Amino acid sequence: MARIALTTRLQKAITPNALRSYLAEFISTFFFVFTVVGSMMSSRRLMPDAASSDLASLVMVAVANALALSSAIYIAANVSGGHINPAVTFGMAVGGHISVLNAICYWISQMMASIMACLLLKVTTVGQHVPTYGITEEMTGFGASVLEGVLTFGLVYTVYVAGDRRHGGFGGVGPLAVGFMAGANVLATGPFSGGSMNPACAFGSAVVAGSFRNQAVYWVGPLIGAAVAGLLYDNMVYPTQSPDSLTGFSSINVS
Amino acid sequence: MARIALTTRLQKAITPNALRSYLAEFISTFFFVFTVVGSMMSSRRLMPDAASSDLASLVMVAVANALALSSAIYIAANVSGGHINPAVTFGMAVGGHISVLNAICYWISQMMASIMACLLLKVTTVGQHVPTYGITEEMTGFGASVLEGVLTFGLVYTVYVAGDRRHGGFGGVGPLAVGFMAGANVLATGPFSGGSMNPACAFGSAVVAGSFRNQAVYWVGPLIGAAVAGLLYDNMVYPTQSPDSLTGFSSINVS
Amino acid sequence: MARIALTTRLQKAITPNALRSYLAEFISTFFFVFTVVGSMMSSRRLMPDAASSDLASLVMVAVANALALSSAIYIAANVSGGHINPAVTFGMAVGGHISVLNAICYWISQMMASIMACLLLKVTTVGQHVPTYGITEEMTGFGASVLEGVLTFGLVYTVYVAGDRRHGGFGGVGPLAVGFMAGANVLATGPFSGGSMNPACAFGSAVVAGSFRNQAVYWVGPLIGAAVAGLLYDNMVYPTQSPDSLTGFSSINVS
Amino acid sequence: MARIALTTRLQKAITPNALRSYLAEFISTFFFVFTVVGSMMSSRRLMPDAASSDLASLVMVAVANALALSSAIYIAANVSGGHINPAVTFGMAVGGHISVLNAICYWISQMMASIMACLLLKVTTVGQHVPTYGITEEMTGFGASVLEGVLTFGLVYTVYVAGDRRHGGFGGVGPLAVGFMAGANVLATGPFSGGSMNPACAFGSAVVAGSFRNQAVYWVGPLIGAAVAGLLYDNMVYPTQSPDSLTGFSSINVS
Repeated sequence: MARIALTTRLQKAITPNALRSYLAEFISTFFFVFTVVGSMMSSRRLMPDAASSDLASLVMVAVANALALSSAIYIAANVSGGHINPAVTFGMAVGGHISVLNAICYWISQMMASIMACLLLKVTTVGQHVPTYGITEEMTGFGASVLEGVLTFGLVYTVYVAGDRRHGGFGGVGPLAVGFMAGANVLATGPFSGGSMNPACAFGSAVVAGSFRNQAVYWVGPLIGAAVAGLLYDNMVYPTQSPDSLTGFSSINVS
Repeated sequence: MARIALTTRLQKAITPNALRSYLAEFISTFFFVFTVVGSMMSSRRLMPDAASSDLASLVMVAVANALALSSAIYIAANVSGGHINPAVTFGMAVGGHISVLNAICYWISQMMASIMACLLLKVTTVGQHVPTYGITEEMTGFGASVLEGVLTFGLVYTVYVAGDRRHGGFGGVGPLAVGFMAGANVLATGPFSGGSMNPACAFGSAVVAGSFRNQAVYWVGPLIGAAVAGLLYDNMVYPTQSPDSLTGFSSINVS
Repeated sequence: MARIALTTRLQKAITPNALRSYLAEFISTFFFVFTVVGSMMSSRRLMPDAASSDLASLVMVAVANALALSSAIYIAANVSGGHINPAVTFGMAVGGHISVLNAICYWISQMMASIMACLLLKVTTVGQHVPTYGITEEMTGFGASVLEGVLTFGLVYTVYVAGDRRHGGFGGVGPLAVGFMAGANVLATGPFSGGSMNPACAFGSAVVAGSFRNQAVYWVGPLIGAAVAGLLYDNMVYPTQSPDSLTGFSSINVS
Repeated sequence: MARIALTTRLQKAITPNALRSYLAEFISTFFFVFTVVGSMMSSRRLMPDAASSDLASLVMVAVANALALSSAIYIAANVSGGHINPAVTFGMAVGGHISVLNAICYWISQMMASIMACLLLKVTTVGQHVPTYGITEEMTGFGASVLEGVLTFGLVYTVYVAGDRRHGGFGGVGPLAVGFMAGANVLATGPFSGGSMNPACAFGSAVVAGSFRNQAVYWVGPLIGAAVAGLLYDNMVYPTQSPDSLTGFSSINVS
């Protein structure tokens, strides 16, 4: 009985629509990570001495974040719901908008996409170092986690609003609103906690660079922030949300 | 009789929809102030010598303003009307689009959100100074008030246009238009009057920094500008506006 | 007979709807010029030595242009058609989308708004110099006129597309598209011809600064470019345009 | 028989609608190339020593790319489908959304527009050098091709999503999403491969500058990336796409 249920659930995870979702997440996360990590590498290439702590380079990375996340969500929204971020997927799973099994497959897609984007950058830009997210020396890991958690709360809350079909789903300026929130957050906290808000992005660059220092900061905070955002939105701000107004899957009927 | 009316009005201020509005204002104002003040702190962290009067840092704060206000309004628009700003709430109250009691509750939410955002920044970024808005030495307080009032006129006028249901309310690019107006205004006047346009933002950073110098500049000008914008819009530009085409409350029916 | 016709036309120029249009043009042009000229003054205030020929300051002015024009058009679109620019009004008049008398009143509104915006900046920022548009020394006035004409062609063409009711008028991202075109044009030609594209903006700053050097450059080129854009759009790209699909007046019925 | 078919196909390439498409492509590509190459020239004019490898100048060119591509696509979307890029046209031809003959005419329009834009810049800005795209010394031509191919994949994929009528075609924020993707890509790879993604842009500047070094990089990679993006989108992500949901031609009936 339990085994049958498991089989059924596994079958639900490999339907054509589900596979298309994983592919869409892969493509969008790949381009998001490629652009964000690539813009860090670009800025380091042009100013080798300044490390990452320069004002112009912060603006550059923040703008890259805002532009890339807007378009990455836009191109995935109709297929996978446009998560691009394990924390968003986690928040959606906590709220019951995506099954656990699908969420795990989303995570695998996002991780693989992030690692491949960083690998491609390392290979094509011969001899360049892949940067990782880091926190400034005067901060504690706990403070950085709190900061990343608050930022991710804002990001996931915006995704909830943008993806809610009761206001038209991602049809309007929703993808831009999410990207703009991400860009603003990077400007606010870049020199302190790095402003990642995306465990996949932090993980992929850490794998390729071979350094997992402070990695927990970019997982614990964001996952908690995402869960809180989802629960708050579903239960307090829009309490009567029907179970399927937010969904991880395609809203377009594909036969 | 009067007491009954008061009770009724108090009850109207704590309906579920009203409470959801206050929560939405809190969340949006928190993130707006967090991002704007945070970006000032980021720029000061990266360029400790330059104070706030540097070109790249001005661009950075203006971009943070534009991005953050766009997304903050977007996520609150369907619940609270997306004020995020005591001056906007004041303008709406003057035009009769929100009751005085609701407006006061909006103000309390906005103030508390602003103080908490600045406190969080101060606590997590150990040892960083929270910046306050200030005017350049060659300007008078009166000139700065006029400037802030004109800027806030532009901002509130844009909110009126964006939120007017006769053009579709906040469904289109309205939130972006308001954010863009704010960003452009900061670029124009940042080095002169600071370009706050938001008494909550100026107040919260002043409370946490413990300095109320020039605080009046960021209240008198913006409130007058907001009231003039509302009256002009309602009476001259769109004279036949029905009393409920702009509203502070949810347009989504929540049972 | 002719006098009667003139009276009728004069009466058409002072209907309530027409007056509302002039007011909307005034407000929008005021904020556009205020922001663009203000951002030039901000950048000069922060870098007094660098004059206007610095990269960061060019980016700043271009961003101010893009943000301000987007929101200025957005707030005027439903009332006056969102011209904000005598060249756009001229292009619309050449195409027959606005009567000559209305166009003249638009021009007067735009000129007055521009002068008042520059005056306000001069008065409030005590002792600051109001900058004027200028061309770089190696360019001829003719070359600069051609450049400004081409830029204005692009701008007016975009306004035609954005305002055409057959694609939904200014309801979508049209105002942003026009603003983005203006910002991109400033980035491309700022250090050469100044990238004004707006005779009102060039005129207002020249009046307040008291210097009309090269003023013809900012009138001849833009007006010709605007007329060509209008004729090309109406006759070749969208040949069957009905006479009232683009209009200077309100699409909202005001009794 | 074959000759008749050829005549028919030639006639289809010179219908009024087709000619309007070529004109729209010409205008949009002209302004896109004008702005992108112009912004490179602006930055070089302001910082003659720094060559193209400076952080502020990279941000400037990326912003110019994002703004210009957004508005260029917006103004052409309803007429020609808003390609502005031979790689996009190639991807559409591979997917069967535009006939080979029309695609060739699109290419000719785009090439001519690019050359004329660069010529105009060279003539009006007397004595300025027209810059060409180049790769950094540590990269191989193959690596740069791969990088440009991946970038163009992202761009063309976004164009497919944005132009797909099943999500409303270019009516929403689609043009902005494409422009934002382009801007983010330039930030990520500008100092490495140049971030062209547009063979017409690379070709036009090379013709006017008289230097075809590394030209193959900007053709081979982008064309392959575009073809892969089109095939993936049509066959895997949105498999049931009807043959005419993406089209090169006007969706507005012109008699």
